[in-house]
Amino acid sequence: MSEDIYILEKNDVRNLIREKRIIELRNHLTEMYEADIAELMDDLNDKVLALLLFRMLPKLKAVEVFSFLSVDNQRDIITAISETELPYIIENIFFDDMIDMIEEMPAEFVNRVLINIPPEKRKLVNQFLKYPEDSAGSLMTIEYVRLTEDMTVKQALDHVREIGLKKETVYTCYITNMHEKLIGIVSLRALVTENPSHKITEIMEKDIIVVNTHDDQELVAEKFKRYDLLAIPVVDNQERLTGIITVDDIIDVMEQEATEDFQIMAAITPSEEEYLGTSVFILAKHRIIWLLILLVSATFTGTIMKNFQHTMESLILLGMFIPMLMDTGGNAGSQSSTLIIRGLATGNIKLSDAFLVLRKEFTISLICGVVLSAVNFTRILIFEPQVPILVALTVSITLITTVVMAKVLGGLLPIAAKKLNLDPAIMAGPLITTVVDAMSLIIYFNVAQAILHI
Amino acid sequence: MSEDIYILEKNDVRNLIREKRIIELRNHLTEMYEADIAELMDDLNDKVLALLLFRMLPKLKAVEVFSFLSVDNQRDIITAISETELPYIIENIFFDDMIDMIEEMPAEFVNRVLINIPPEKRKLVNQFLKYPEDSAGSLMTIEYVRLTEDMTVKQALDHVREIGLKKETVYTCYITNMHEKLIGIVSLRALVTENPSHKITEIMEKDIIVVNTHDDQELVAEKFKRYDLLAIPVVDNQERLTGIITVDDIIDVMEQEATEDFQIMAAITPSEEEYLGTSVFILAKHRIIWLLILLVSATFTGTIMKNFQHTMESLILLGMFIPMLMDTGGNAGSQSSTLIIRGLATGNIKLSDAFLVLRKEFTISLICGVVLSAVNFTRILIFEPQVPILVALTVSITLITTVVMAKVLGGLLPIAAKKLNLDPAIMAGPLITTVVDAMSLIIYFNVAQAILHI
Repeated sequence: MSEDIYILEKNDVRNLIREKRIIELRNHLTEMYEADIAELMDDLNDKVLALLLFRMLPKLKAVEVFSFLSVDNQRDIITAISETELPYIIENIFFDDMIDMIEEMPAEFVNRVLINIPPEKRKLVNQFLKYPEDSAGSLMTIEYVRLTEDMTVKQALDHVREIGLKKETVYTCYITNMHEKLIGIVSLRALVTENPSHKITEIMEKDIIVVNTHDDQELVAEKFKRYDLLAIPVVDNQERLTGIITVDDIIDVMEQEATEDFQIMAAITPSEEEYLGTSVFILAKHRIIWLLILLVSATFTGTIMKNFQHTMESLILLGMFIPMLMDTGGNAGSQSSTLIIRGLATGNIKLSDAFLVLRKEFTISLICGVVLSAVNFTRILIFEPQVPILVALTVSITLITTVVMAKVLGGLLPIAAKKLNLDPAIMAGPLITTVVDAMSLIIYFNVAQAILHI
Repeated sequence: MSEDIYILEKNDVRNLIREKRIIELRNHLTEMYEADIAELMDDLNDKVLALLLFRMLPKLKAVEVFSFLSVDNQRDIITAISETELPYIIENIFFDDMIDMIEEMPAEFVNRVLINIPPEKRKLVNQFLKYPEDSAGSLMTIEYVRLTEDMTVKQALDHVREIGLKKETVYTCYITNMHEKLIGIVSLRALVTENPSHKITEIMEKDIIVVNTHDDQELVAEKFKRYDLLAIPVVDNQERLTGIITVDDIIDVMEQEATEDFQIMAAITPSEEEYLGTSVFILAKHRIIWLLILLVSATFTGTIMKNFQHTMESLILLGMFIPMLMDTGGNAGSQSSTLIIRGLATGNIKLSDAFLVLRKEFTISLICGVVLSAVNFTRILIFEPQVPILVALTVSITLITTVVMAKVLGGLLPIAAKKLNLDPAIMAGPLITTVVDAMSLIIYFNVAQAILHI
């Protein structure tokens, strides 16, 4: 049972090495899963020690561990290992893992990898490297079982037996015609259960869900989710089969897309780099641009206040409520925009739902605004008796209006962004807050002038 | 090719029905994928029409479409169909889809479903319904291939052939001993390629990654991601095999967990209900609680301003910069807390990284703070010549201090929350903003008093 499997921590490794219990260390490593060994090596943060562990692994296990490692560690290992070890890794690593690795490495390492790839495969690697980042082409692997239309079930099964062990997935096999065009798929389940003498074309599934090499990875993930797939074939513009994408890579894509949305919604330039492994200057750069844009936008609030300076001066008390009004408006707007952005991302809300969203957000904001105003009005009456009732009324009216405005804007701006082919996620909390702040100040001072006659 | 498959839209359906082109409609439906038909029925928002489409489907396809439908539509169909149709659906729907459906339905429908389940299966259903929501037990299915330890590869393959077509996944088979304890797994790939006369126990994998029925679904998703699994066995406390969880259900869990984090981070009570299908009162209820909490907290800013009323009155100009200072502090804090919350969720940041995060956020915030202050100082000098230079200096010093404080708090509070076994996501933008607002006001007025001697 895995729950009982002993997972080494970095301190265990250091202790075992200090005490020269190398055989014990090697035995523990042999029992661990590849993903866990890779994490341990990344955690160690020590090139020499990581390389030492790597060399203790059985050859094939080492290749698998390698594909789980961080780019930094992969680079260190490629630098350190000999000219005889490198070809072994390159020959045995899954094709899509190799492409991933090459894509993320600096040029000097890419060359050292490329010269170790056999010429016929190198051409394919170069072709794969040309697919746009985040496209289906950049995700796919060439390791799948391809069958031809003239095969019987028995021939197909024999073919799977012969080459299947090396392929990343054998559970769906792909049937192409003489022009390499994908004409059908058949599951290993079907091959095992069907009559061996049947023609493969009789039992294959002809309605196939495919993606194009240039489709965006978000669309690919969408199809996996919608149709509960384990793998999807990738075709080029001539409908020729060029590769497949497997579900494990799509799980990574989904996580990456969600992370990107989180970053954009927090006004951070999105990046795939891991927080702990990234320098503070890069991290600061990703944050400063939006902070500057929002800072400059926020100075408009100062201009608005200057225009109402007379109103402020005549009743300094009004200023006390500004932070609360602005915060509540920002929070109300963030709630709406977050729900709509997420709904657009998961496909539960469509562009055509704009009117439904408007109607819903308007009603919700009225309910929330009235409750918040009532609570706040009561709070002022009880705890702040020095506040004139007309000021409390001004605050309450502004609160309702601000919440309604914030929620309607928060609901519609993401949809508007999507209509303009922008990422809806930019219309999240920070931007909504800045817009709502300015508008709530204008409402506040106008209501104050009207009610308090100042 | 799926890209060429004609997908009916709701208006097409209405037109075809109005023009009485029923056979054409049925033909289109037969060609569509089950997931697409279900979405069409949900989109129609018309009970009678949805039921009409449902009745046009071939029986087995109808069952599959049923399992993709929204709970509301499932309920309507159960209400409408006859006592002979219901048992057919119940008999043919995947076990985990049935459990999902029963869990989300009101009691009166549950009873109508339960009485149609054969007694021996009903006992199992009741047992499954007892697993805590979001536990491995509530996600698992009982439809998998179980082999016994005395089988040969040939016997195992024959067994798969015999029962495999009905099982949700046959690609991994599970071997149990006489006490129903899970002792190994074997892939269909291995069964197909290994020598048929070998014992199953010779070729099975004995190091198995399992989860317990009571494990949280987040842990289950974590294991799928880490080990690139297609399915995971679920065992009880006696290590007996009770079910398996397949990757398609985990993809749904991952999406659901990310949505939950988005909601909590936007200060919304998390809920699995879809936005468009939920009443405004429920939606308002999910939002009002946090808005009230944050509103009451935000009134502290008023108290702080009251305490510094004298400072404000002596220089009304100071008030103009408050919204900008508060917004920038809130944005800076949200950036940090979002990155840390997401890092904790994906496992890239651990509790033990607290000191690293502190150091990183401190340096980043210094860089960001200095740049923002410099830009803002220059902006005031150029565009707002009426502002005394000492006031501009006060604003700049406050800006740096606020950004540093916001980012350090934003980085550490999510880790602290996790340490206290709270969901780190609550320490997101809205809460950080409220805390930072209060602290930035205190800093601002104190700096103003010190520099401006007021």
